[in-house]
Amino acid sequence: MKSTQRWSPEKHARMVLTCVSEPGDLRLAETVAREGVLTTVDSLTQKRSETAWGRRFAALDLDQILAAATQSNTRFLAPGDPQWPDRLGDLEHAEPVGGFGGPAVGLWVRGPGDLAEWCERSVAIVGSRASSVYGETVAADLAYDLVGKGYTVVSGGAFGIDARAHHGALAGNGRSICFLAGGVDDPYPRANGALFERMAREHLLVAEVPPTTTPIRTRFLTRNRLIAAAALGTVIVEGGTRSGARNTITWANNLARAAMAVPGSVHSGSSVMPNRVIRDRVAELVSGAADVLEVVSPMGQQQLPLVRGREKSPDWLDEVQLTVFEAVPGRGAITGGEVALKTGLDLPSVLVALSQVGERGLINPTDDGGWRLVHGVAG
Amino acid sequence: MKSTQRWSPEKHARMVLTCVSEPGDLRLAETVAREGVLTTVDSLTQKRSETAWGRRFAALDLDQILAAATQSNTRFLAPGDPQWPDRLGDLEHAEPVGGFGGPAVGLWVRGPGDLAEWCERSVAIVGSRASSVYGETVAADLAYDLVGKGYTVVSGGAFGIDARAHHGALAGNGRSICFLAGGVDDPYPRANGALFERMAREHLLVAEVPPTTTPIRTRFLTRNRLIAAAALGTVIVEGGTRSGARNTITWANNLARAAMAVPGSVHSGSSVMPNRVIRDRVAELVSGAADVLEVVSPMGQQQLPLVRGREKSPDWLDEVQLTVFEAVPGRGAITGGEVALKTGLDLPSVLVALSQVGERGLINPTDDGGWRLVHGVAG
Repeated sequence: MKSTQRWSPEKHARMVLTCVSEPGDLRLAETVAREGVLTTVDSLTQKRSETAWGRRFAALDLDQILAAATQSNTRFLAPGDPQWPDRLGDLEHAEPVGGFGGPAVGLWVRGPGDLAEWCERSVAIVGSRASSVYGETVAADLAYDLVGKGYTVVSGGAFGIDARAHHGALAGNGRSICFLAGGVDDPYPRANGALFERMAREHLLVAEVPPTTTPIRTRFLTRNRLIAAAALGTVIVEGGTRSGARNTITWANNLARAAMAVPGSVHSGSSVMPNRVIRDRVAELVSGAADVLEVVSPMGQQQLPLVRGREKSPDWLDEVQLTVFEAVPGRGAITGGEVALKTGLDLPSVLVALSQVGERGLINPTDDGGWRLVHGVAG
Repeated sequence: MKSTQRWSPEKHARMVLTCVSEPGDLRLAETVAREGVLTTVDSLTQKRSETAWGRRFAALDLDQILAAATQSNTRFLAPGDPQWPDRLGDLEHAEPVGGFGGPAVGLWVRGPGDLAEWCERSVAIVGSRASSVYGETVAADLAYDLVGKGYTVVSGGAFGIDARAHHGALAGNGRSICFLAGGVDDPYPRANGALFERMAREHLLVAEVPPTTTPIRTRFLTRNRLIAAAALGTVIVEGGTRSGARNTITWANNLARAAMAVPGSVHSGSSVMPNRVIRDRVAELVSGAADVLEVVSPMGQQQLPLVRGREKSPDWLDEVQLTVFEAVPGRGAITGGEVALKTGLDLPSVLVALSQVGERGLINPTDDGGWRLVHGVAG
């Protein structure tokens, strides 16, 4: 990759902007919206030392970044590219979170997947690094089940829930996208290196910041908005009171995406955040992939509150049948009249119910017009 | 207790009606609403054999029931009695559940408590017999904490969650009310005998059916409506897919009472029902007594959806301070200008943030105008 040759001026300008600005910088979003990327970058050459972007521009060695991109087989995507996920455009109008927001200027992408196509039917699975066995199992199972239904898994690259979600997707031979807070050429944390290598080979690693960039705290937070925006919905599996995954849920809310959470023990510190966002009704409770699909499925009513039917009676006999059935003694027989007296039901209802329960094979008629329990069934 | 002497004709009639009818019989509720209890009972003497009530009336030995009441120190309460909880009146207009409903004709009560006063500030804790250690701990802790805040615990008499809730209330030296599906003279199940004995001595056992009545399935279900009606709100702690506690939650909904549920592991069969009613938004998620009080407290907004403030930033530094702080290297010093370049923030913001982080004692100024990490704090 050479710095100015292979891209349109606009794409080159966007590439430069990802190098000199911080992801989620609202001033940048405003400037770009007002002046366009070309004018924004042109003005940097004039005001080099006056602004943070200008100072960075002065210090920028784009060839060095492009060399790292080439070496790691990283490509640059800009809005409008065939692989650019349209859904990310929603960031343009979403309410900012904690002073950050706005659309991505561009994305640095590693791996063979088609980002646009993979995002189309995708679910984000997020959570804390300090995860429990419970959360890790749920994350991996959920990812496994979702890829089995043809959905792509989206997550970050952290230990714990993020990594388990990717592992689950990989185990299910599905698609997985990892959004990183630092450069995709050297994914953080390095201890997840084997996972990242496999994802770079078979899946997708994506970052808003260019190669050679180190992840810092705000970049994790602004990265979260891409996870929320790229997926149909976001599931938080585990997180403590300060979990950054809360931030992703807020982004899902602000983007009018489905926000979901897996409940857990009220005794588990790792389930505090999922339980809290469910309590506060900023996320839907999901117990597994079936619940997630009911929320995000394009066939369902994604943005509408779910309306479900009344719970069925807790047994396959109706109340009258059950009452009548339970009035039949364990030993000996009983007449319809006796059942009516014992249960307080009227005789015609009792006789109908007795014959219905009889049809179910739970009681048998006796020769003298009574009913007797069929043993071995009722136990 | 003698059958006709000590009560007003109306109260005596109500007593008779509890003996000849089944709790929750909607036809009875209609008849009583239309004709009054006196006429309803009078007509039984005419139509003895024609109706279920009439047949039961013919077979009724009220003196035997009253003897059992006397022996177990059981009293009969009717609507309008000083100890009659006004809140039960809401049953008159609540939508029936599964074909049952309507107000209680009267209540048979055992124990020293004042039912009306005790119900005033009360929370029902319900759940399955097949409970887990998790559910039992939560039920007992919740009851313990609620009585510590001056609330009465209301539940049934079953093994598992019900029993643990009462035990928790007793352990907290609080008040507990047990609504039974059979006669209070011989509470079911007998294996909870020690608990029932203590509750009869110090608390309250309550039933709609008269002494000597055996509990049958429909009586458990119709009993649930009293639990839901007596309390400010109902919490389901555990329950499987067929849990009868779902019925109590439905009653709480139909009575416009607070319905709450304790979340649990998605791997636990005992948490299926709480998780489901939260998912379906027929119950609020509660993680403990604090959540319950926020829902039921008369100072709160019991019937309104809860609106909570935005989550605070996940740390005690704001985002800019954190970004700046994290830009300070582990070894050596850094200038404000270098931090600005590294973070992309403008220099004035960086200088302000550096001095704020310095005030927190996390970094120290160097002699040449830079900043250096205070070790032992940042680790």
